[in-house]
Amino acid sequence: MKWVRFQRDGQEWMGIWKENGIYPVEGEMFGSYTVTEEAVAHDDVRLLAPLTPNKLIAIGRNYAAHAAEGGKPVPKEPMIFLVSPTAVIGPEEEIYLPNRVDRIDHEAELAVVIGKRGKAIPRERAREYIFGYTCGNDVSNRVLQKKDGQFTRAKSFDTFKPLGPWIETELDPSDLRIRLEVNGEVRQDGRTSEMVHSIPVLVEAISAVFPLEPGDVILTGTPSGVGPLQPGDQVRMEIEGIGALSHRVTG
Amino acid sequence: MKWVRFQRDGQEWMGIWKENGIYPVEGEMFGSYTVTEEAVAHDDVRLLAPLTPNKLIAIGRNYAAHAAEGGKPVPKEPMIFLVSPTAVIGPEEEIYLPNRVDRIDHEAELAVVIGKRGKAIPRERAREYIFGYTCGNDVSNRVLQKKDGQFTRAKSFDTFKPLGPWIETELDPSDLRIRLEVNGEVRQDGRTSEMVHSIPVLVEAISAVFPLEPGDVILTGTPSGVGPLQPGDQVRMEIEGIGALSHRVTG
Repeated sequence: MKWVRFQRDGQEWMGIWKENGIYPVEGEMFGSYTVTEEAVAHDDVRLLAPLTPNKLIAIGRNYAAHAAEGGKPVPKEPMIFLVSPTAVIGPEEEIYLPNRVDRIDHEAELAVVIGKRGKAIPRERAREYIFGYTCGNDVSNRVLQKKDGQFTRAKSFDTFKPLGPWIETELDPSDLRIRLEVNGEVRQDGRTSEMVHSIPVLVEAISAVFPLEPGDVILTGTPSGVGPLQPGDQVRMEIEGIGALSHRVTG
Repeated sequence: MKWVRFQRDGQEWMGIWKENGIYPVEGEMFGSYTVTEEAVAHDDVRLLAPLTPNKLIAIGRNYAAHAAEGGKPVPKEPMIFLVSPTAVIGPEEEIYLPNRVDRIDHEAELAVVIGKRGKAIPRERAREYIFGYTCGNDVSNRVLQKKDGQFTRAKSFDTFKPLGPWIETELDPSDLRIRLEVNGEVRQDGRTSEMVHSIPVLVEAISAVFPLEPGDVILTGTPSGVGPLQPGDQVRMEIEGIGALSHRVTG
């Protein structure tokens, strides 16, 4: 199923995206809910980010080729940090670059949405805690990232975390193609099978430290090919089995 | 006023702590509320952390003497990172060390509680967004902190963020004594006036990146004198004008 959030007639809704329309949902995304029987036309709604994350957890250098292009070693254990959930935008918003001088890069990533609370989850049981998967672009200010050492500030500016277009709940995430284009030119083209630490390992490693909770999102790291964005750019990422997320860049 | 949260008869309450008892509050801590007229005896309640933070924002090396004891430079701009709010405990819980091999340190800090949403707040107006102040102990696993580079994991284990005992809303935070003792021996003894970046500067710097929201907590950095905790220790911190926060350490 493809879970969306959308705006219609000035109100926010959840729904299930199908070929013939969007079926509004009443209830809780991570609890009990009912799907209504009457669909809304795709063109009649404005899609929002499929959720506002509770915790937004990011993983640094989780593809060897990306670590290499940054001249950094691959971390032996997952490099875990947190980003402000306020940076999230949906599929129909714009990425705003607050600073035209600093280099600000795109980073296409598979985003994992947690549906159930868990602490010290063994990797073999990780799947039970995962609600689904969506596309995430981990936009990053390289100048601040280097200056701070800590990655939070560089990656937490408003609009720096596009998510969407929906959460796909039926998917094997272990070997999916991830692509990102800027103005039609391919910049990133990798596979989730290239992750240094797989999704089950990430779930185990994070939940060994703090509980994963419903609505938490894990950005699982980016393949190689990251590069700068400029105002006016059109950036489009696509993950096999999920879909595509396109954004105009302004500044 | 001293805002507390407490448990009584199996239920959670907010209240105002006064000398002669706790006055339960109905409504919203950061909105409209009414204080009831009948006090509950201090001894009849179990104090909880005064809030569960929305974002838990920490500042690295914000006292020059602490930066020096770690052999690190003082950051020219505030070093901002995020910690998991799930690590918070209240005044009557225990600090649990999950790992007896790694060095795990105490860090006494003034914690700022945000009461109002704001973005790009100029330092001159920072006070309008602050609800109050409480004590925070930023317990940190030094081995992981060094290994990861990113500070999130080292500081986000369950029980690693004691907060309390209450939020003091009437206080000038600019020059308060901060002390921490382990088993009655003074380990940290500093003053908030020694902060490299003052609270108004921190509010300005953080809100330049992402919005501050009601319930956000800023841990403003620790004075020098950090040192290891061991199971069985009794750790007590006190901030002038707020109060004292004591915890037993287990492991």
